[in-house]
Amino acid sequence: MKKLIKNGTIITAADTFTAEILIEDGKISQIGTNLPAQGAEVIDANGCLVFPGGIDPHTHLDMPFGGTVTKDDFETGTIAAAFGGTTTVIDFCLTNKGEPLKNSIQTWHAKSKEKAVIDYGFHLMIAEINENVLNELPYVINEEGITSFKVFMAYKNVFQADDETLFRTLISAKEHGALVMVHAENGDVIDYLTKKAVEEGNRDPIYHALTRPPELEGEATGRAAKLTGLANSQLYVVHVSCADAVEKIAEARSKGFNVWGETCPQYLVLDQSYLERPNFEGAKYVWSPPLREKWNQEVLWNALKSGQLQTLGSDQCSFDFKGQKDLGRDDFTKIPNGGPIIEDRLSILFSEGVRKGRISLNQFVDLTSTRAAKLFGLFPKKGTIAVGSDADIVIFDPQAERVISVETHHMAVDYNAFEGMKVTGEPVSVLSRGEFVIRDKQFVGKPGAGQYLKRAKYSVNTPLNINQTLSI
Amino acid sequence: MKKLIKNGTIITAADTFTAEILIEDGKISQIGTNLPAQGAEVIDANGCLVFPGGIDPHTHLDMPFGGTVTKDDFETGTIAAAFGGTTTVIDFCLTNKGEPLKNSIQTWHAKSKEKAVIDYGFHLMIAEINENVLNELPYVINEEGITSFKVFMAYKNVFQADDETLFRTLISAKEHGALVMVHAENGDVIDYLTKKAVEEGNRDPIYHALTRPPELEGEATGRAAKLTGLANSQLYVVHVSCADAVEKIAEARSKGFNVWGETCPQYLVLDQSYLERPNFEGAKYVWSPPLREKWNQEVLWNALKSGQLQTLGSDQCSFDFKGQKDLGRDDFTKIPNGGPIIEDRLSILFSEGVRKGRISLNQFVDLTSTRAAKLFGLFPKKGTIAVGSDADIVIFDPQAERVISVETHHMAVDYNAFEGMKVTGEPVSVLSRGEFVIRDKQFVGKPGAGQYLKRAKYSVNTPLNINQTLSI
Amino acid sequence: MKKLIKNGTIITAADTFTAEILIEDGKISQIGTNLPAQGAEVIDANGCLVFPGGIDPHTHLDMPFGGTVTKDDFETGTIAAAFGGTTTVIDFCLTNKGEPLKNSIQTWHAKSKEKAVIDYGFHLMIAEINENVLNELPYVINEEGITSFKVFMAYKNVFQADDETLFRTLISAKEHGALVMVHAENGDVIDYLTKKAVEEGNRDPIYHALTRPPELEGEATGRAAKLTGLANSQLYVVHVSCADAVEKIAEARSKGFNVWGETCPQYLVLDQSYLERPNFEGAKYVWSPPLREKWNQEVLWNALKSGQLQTLGSDQCSFDFKGQKDLGRDDFTKIPNGGPIIEDRLSILFSEGVRKGRISLNQFVDLTSTRAAKLFGLFPKKGTIAVGSDADIVIFDPQAERVISVETHHMAVDYNAFEGMKVTGEPVSVLSRGEFVIRDKQFVGKPGAGQYLKRAKYSVNTPLNINQTLSI
Amino acid sequence: MKKLIKNGTIITAADTFTAEILIEDGKISQIGTNLPAQGAEVIDANGCLVFPGGIDPHTHLDMPFGGTVTKDDFETGTIAAAFGGTTTVIDFCLTNKGEPLKNSIQTWHAKSKEKAVIDYGFHLMIAEINENVLNELPYVINEEGITSFKVFMAYKNVFQADDETLFRTLISAKEHGALVMVHAENGDVIDYLTKKAVEEGNRDPIYHALTRPPELEGEATGRAAKLTGLANSQLYVVHVSCADAVEKIAEARSKGFNVWGETCPQYLVLDQSYLERPNFEGAKYVWSPPLREKWNQEVLWNALKSGQLQTLGSDQCSFDFKGQKDLGRDDFTKIPNGGPIIEDRLSILFSEGVRKGRISLNQFVDLTSTRAAKLFGLFPKKGTIAVGSDADIVIFDPQAERVISVETHHMAVDYNAFEGMKVTGEPVSVLSRGEFVIRDKQFVGKPGAGQYLKRAKYSVNTPLNINQTLSI
Repeated sequence: MKKLIKNGTIITAADTFTAEILIEDGKISQIGTNLPAQGAEVIDANGCLVFPGGIDPHTHLDMPFGGTVTKDDFETGTIAAAFGGTTTVIDFCLTNKGEPLKNSIQTWHAKSKEKAVIDYGFHLMIAEINENVLNELPYVINEEGITSFKVFMAYKNVFQADDETLFRTLISAKEHGALVMVHAENGDVIDYLTKKAVEEGNRDPIYHALTRPPELEGEATGRAAKLTGLANSQLYVVHVSCADAVEKIAEARSKGFNVWGETCPQYLVLDQSYLERPNFEGAKYVWSPPLREKWNQEVLWNALKSGQLQTLGSDQCSFDFKGQKDLGRDDFTKIPNGGPIIEDRLSILFSEGVRKGRISLNQFVDLTSTRAAKLFGLFPKKGTIAVGSDADIVIFDPQAERVISVETHHMAVDYNAFEGMKVTGEPVSVLSRGEFVIRDKQFVGKPGAGQYLKRAKYSVNTPLNINQTLSI
Repeated sequence: MKKLIKNGTIITAADTFTAEILIEDGKISQIGTNLPAQGAEVIDANGCLVFPGGIDPHTHLDMPFGGTVTKDDFETGTIAAAFGGTTTVIDFCLTNKGEPLKNSIQTWHAKSKEKAVIDYGFHLMIAEINENVLNELPYVINEEGITSFKVFMAYKNVFQADDETLFRTLISAKEHGALVMVHAENGDVIDYLTKKAVEEGNRDPIYHALTRPPELEGEATGRAAKLTGLANSQLYVVHVSCADAVEKIAEARSKGFNVWGETCPQYLVLDQSYLERPNFEGAKYVWSPPLREKWNQEVLWNALKSGQLQTLGSDQCSFDFKGQKDLGRDDFTKIPNGGPIIEDRLSILFSEGVRKGRISLNQFVDLTSTRAAKLFGLFPKKGTIAVGSDADIVIFDPQAERVISVETHHMAVDYNAFEGMKVTGEPVSVLSRGEFVIRDKQFVGKPGAGQYLKRAKYSVNTPLNINQTLSI
Repeated sequence: MKKLIKNGTIITAADTFTAEILIEDGKISQIGTNLPAQGAEVIDANGCLVFPGGIDPHTHLDMPFGGTVTKDDFETGTIAAAFGGTTTVIDFCLTNKGEPLKNSIQTWHAKSKEKAVIDYGFHLMIAEINENVLNELPYVINEEGITSFKVFMAYKNVFQADDETLFRTLISAKEHGALVMVHAENGDVIDYLTKKAVEEGNRDPIYHALTRPPELEGEATGRAAKLTGLANSQLYVVHVSCADAVEKIAEARSKGFNVWGETCPQYLVLDQSYLERPNFEGAKYVWSPPLREKWNQEVLWNALKSGQLQTLGSDQCSFDFKGQKDLGRDDFTKIPNGGPIIEDRLSILFSEGVRKGRISLNQFVDLTSTRAAKLFGLFPKKGTIAVGSDADIVIFDPQAERVISVETHHMAVDYNAFEGMKVTGEPVSVLSRGEFVIRDKQFVGKPGAGQYLKRAKYSVNTPLNINQTLSI
Repeated sequence: MKKLIKNGTIITAADTFTAEILIEDGKISQIGTNLPAQGAEVIDANGCLVFPGGIDPHTHLDMPFGGTVTKDDFETGTIAAAFGGTTTVIDFCLTNKGEPLKNSIQTWHAKSKEKAVIDYGFHLMIAEINENVLNELPYVINEEGITSFKVFMAYKNVFQADDETLFRTLISAKEHGALVMVHAENGDVIDYLTKKAVEEGNRDPIYHALTRPPELEGEATGRAAKLTGLANSQLYVVHVSCADAVEKIAEARSKGFNVWGETCPQYLVLDQSYLERPNFEGAKYVWSPPLREKWNQEVLWNALKSGQLQTLGSDQCSFDFKGQKDLGRDDFTKIPNGGPIIEDRLSILFSEGVRKGRISLNQFVDLTSTRAAKLFGLFPKKGTIAVGSDADIVIFDPQAERVISVETHHMAVDYNAFEGMKVTGEPVSVLSRGEFVIRDKQFVGKPGAGQYLKRAKYSVNTPLNINQTLSI
């Protein structure tokens, strides 16, 4: 059935204008004034912003970690995402050394297929590079449409890859048209510092931050960026948390390297002092990289403003405070890393960024949706409001005020890291391919309605051959 | 009369999609598939790109300089601009110390009113800051809609302002919502070096470049940027030519300063060696800042790619080789500075930038049009293809090949600085507010049809008050 | 009469060893063990360090400023200097536009000749560059032995020179073998900010700092350094106070530019908060550049340690709190700039630098004496303990503890900026050309005993012609 | 027997003066004029410079590498060193994983004891950190006087240590008062690039350089420096070859880190193009890091001038062209790395550095001798001309001209990498602890005369406790 969204102010990564949007067959067919309403359900967006559904390029749903499993799975996680205005997630598919990549991908399909309420895709972790892995890559890219690979420079003896693996992944990605993602922290040194802290009896949550100092993120980020330039490949640095790392990304970009950076809401508004909260409350704020000293926040905001960082991910990776986080009550190294953020990513950026003049509305859309769509091969199907694109649309009340709280959130976990934070701006309704998932702030979607997205190859800054499909 | 553009691939600063565009009353009323064609002239854009008309933020038409006057006036200049896909120019209105600003503005209105074939606005030169000038600013901004001021840090004893004037202009601009533009070169030192060169008998055109070394542009750019940060004001650095200046702009932006940079086609594809051409041919390439050593080109391209520079201006300032440039045959200091570029700005960026993979199509549109519209208070009336915007539209054949030449160009001058350069991509038709100015590569416009544009105040990164007009 | 210093630990800019020093005819004739003692007065330096007398490259004695005159003249100033271990001062000879340089120099000779108790030289201020000035330079350099020129980038309408004057001074200095010194602050902007502060009623001492922000020192320092590189000349930046300026000097040096930097004790141990002291006490801490936020101190220390800054001057410029500083009680702009430091320069650097491990003993000697001797054409006559050098020697008790105080200092002013500061290490005896000036902490010198020093041309990094006098 | 050196110009790291030097019992006892000559052999140094014997902090004598052994052993190597004005070498003692450090040290003692003609010490390679190694460190440092450890970041599967080993070594070194040295290149990526080059048939010597690009040296240097700062330890980066690495060292030093850098003559005067010489001649120029593009030379010279680099080592590691280098005739990876330079280190720096005005005479002494003595615990016994120091003295004719050649050199290898290079300045006589090793350009020393040097702990920038031995 057709839908006609009227009276809203449409925001894209470039434009701001008032018009109607006609939706047919799950896609946007017309944008204009006085569009034909017959046969269409009319949705009044008066007083609201209308922008493309968010794309969260960084989630960990139903993921095993440290002997437990993230609390939110593809059902609760995508429902919460939809409440927050996100209509696409790209989740990390873990792999195991020695095991076929295909198996891991099948595992991830099994986790998501019947549960997701919005569309989703997968990044693939690369733990090793050998003949088997190289032989599987064409299948992964062409058949599964997985065009981004994740390499961990940290988590020694667990996920960590060495520099040869990273470099060979960069070379392969270049050849196959994929984007390499890195978790950039120096795992060797972190491993030493954490063991030493534990030995010395420094076991409180704050030591999680103190044993992963920003220098180690800056170092690894600079290393990955340099290798990318040398390989003439492409790199996406996930969850940038500190000035040291921003500087390295900016330096690489100024040399023309294809290096991109993502930050997350937690690094923009929370800081290291949260880990010192009493009664083990600090454990709620254990992310890797850790929260940093407060002055880094301004550097991150400036990087978003100036374009040195290009996306906002959530790094959703939720664990209950009771029963999961408290595995580390006597030893911070046993606290599962991560937190619940998938739901409030857009609200926080809008409230703290747009309303306070740090970024423009168009930048907001670019950061939460459009740029991720372009980098990860989803554009223009996803990531914008344009004729022909999927009708993944958020109708957003820029005046609505609310307080973030575990009492009201839709994630499955027992706490909220932003508890008590006042935000202005909230999604009213959210459509996925033209169907309401959230309507008037109520969930009306359906588990399993989300479709798996085979993504196109990385094509940013590919020399333009006009006869090809025109790209970003 | 309505117009309907069909079958083209629409490019905006964010989007790339295929759709029809309906134009009514000079504005875009609908974008979509299967739009109603009745009553509309149908324009077939099959095989073409359709993007917003270029905005040239930096032209000098009908401008007196060094005892002569630029060859192109508002008629020949805007016709040539239109041929090249530009539908808006913002020209520099010169002022004289001690004379009311209003007089100067009237002079510029007189130059342009009956001649321009496309829409136009003015920047205003600030030569001094005193009570009279301060008292006139409200009129200039609110009545004339001139919301950008130009300060020269070079041309000693002619245009040059001292640092106090620059700083006070920044402070005033901040208060009034205007954008300060600078010509950033250290005029004091240039003055000394040029006098010395002439005294020593070094009078060939190459000495124009050698007496204005890039260090002096870098120095002045850094100085202006630092003062902008201190004033918490906003700055637009015109015609950035070299690595040294790019670095200073990037550094300022990384600190969150509102500093923007423009480069020009000549700096992207020509270099200092052109000034050494025999038979005084070097004079054709005398710009200020001068062309630089070739390696700077890559730095400029990288800055466009990474977003460290945001716009492409032409710095159109044309003089005949015979009768004007040759005033300096015996003394390079008497060569009128500048060249004819207004016509080929888009072609060069498309051919060298987009086709060669240095920038994306969306960046092309942003650099040639959208960003200038936003920075200079013309958005969303100008600078995009969106419902409600002026139908300033270019239909562009991305496959057309041509050779730039004085034989075929439409500027009034007797040479072309890019003579012989092969470019791919050319405007077929160009509309200004829905009317053809160029149709099938023929001029069909009318002198005087261009309208003067009162521009809005600078509002980039103003904290968002949702009740205000929504801005960029 | 001969003197023999025994049992001390000798420290030079390179060496640390225990030996005897034999002094004959005011010069060092032998260094060794078992030197012949007959006919020599033996001085026991047991437990003491023995190092070259300090050279203070930056003093303002008997200098008119803002309608008053510095309290310390060449008598009280040099006595205090000697108490502190300084045996040479280089004072700034002010000049007036339009007046022959020779006259100004004669004035300075008249101020100093009968008063100085230690040797002294002059730097010459350059207020303008014209034919008269250029014609006088050979006399100044060759006859007067004044081989360093000072240019002010601040103090608008008083001392400030424009960039052309600075650049021409750099060119002339290069040609004549002189070193250009700059006071690097952007005077234009400071002038505006101070006027504005006064107009707005912000007249307390703290506004002295707030109207001269570090950005303006960084800007001017970078500008001067860039012009020096362009001129291939040599530059000495006086009184570097902040990170922003250090960074610019380091950057210039990394490019091979002959750029040198001096800081002062006040910037190493005091900070901006001192200007906020109640009851107008803040006026005691009014220097230009002003004291900075405390974090800058670490940057300055690191710059001394790593060699990015090379000398420590005092910028001695003393005014009484009562009767002089209080000229600005109602208006900070009328507070005479400067303070009394000539006496405690070495003590502070030794106590805070050497004892705390920030710099080595050899660096201490280099910073307080040797490097200045080399840069200003006094080496090896001054600045070291070596055979043939003047016996300007400090016998220093590294264990002595004292508290700096107006009660005990020897300067003529009524307060001490470091009042109450505990320092370890104090000169016991000080010799100038082999004669005691200070003996067992008592003044035993004589006004007029100090000799005027004609200094050699700047020769650091001059290609070595072995047949010439061997130089640094 | 006493010796008296007369008429020479003495140069130290700080001073330049003319005086006599009296030597007794192998040490300098007096410096002065008119010293007592009776009973002393008088050496006339008229027209000559007299400076401290060079300390070469980086040699590989009698070292196994890639299936062969360096051609020069402790006899031929130290004889050649003495001819060139070097009186101390510190050689790298290799170790093997799993084997006691003591064994390796004994092996090195066996290689050197009967052969060295000048004094020598050892650095110790750290291949792994475990309990055994940690337990041996007190012996190594206190008994053997080995206070510097070398970690390789390159040579994968041979010498390469991982980041944890590097970091733990830094921590241990800090605790024990040792200095960590790194070979800074990213071995993982080099390993991949070299294998790939070989597979692709790119086996000529030039590929040695192309597979070890400067980015990988810059990366590893930055990584090591960052870890040093984090550990608050001390680092010495050997054989810095390129701009990228210099920048990282300068950045670390500006933050106050205890990071030091050494370059070598080959990087100052040779460049990458040498590896392209025909007939496999390129193999003569195979060092790791490789020779770089020529423009890096200016950066290195500027770094010596400004103090960003502090020492000049030789990295002596000589292999015959025939029979050794040609092991790699079909595969550059089999070319033994290194070259013969121990003999001409001082000549090249003097001729290219001092005579051409890039550095001063005092800097020359500091770079070739004094600074190494201070960093490696040999000062003031070695590294200067001062009373009490060993009489390790070079009498150097600054006017002598010669051509470097295999025909005349004293190293055991069959080629000279600087063949045909004209240098000005040559040692005439060289004394080691007061005995001639070279006299009038003839070798008069004796194998086995050289003594093993137990070195003191690292004490640069240790807070000064005046009651301790006074240190640098």
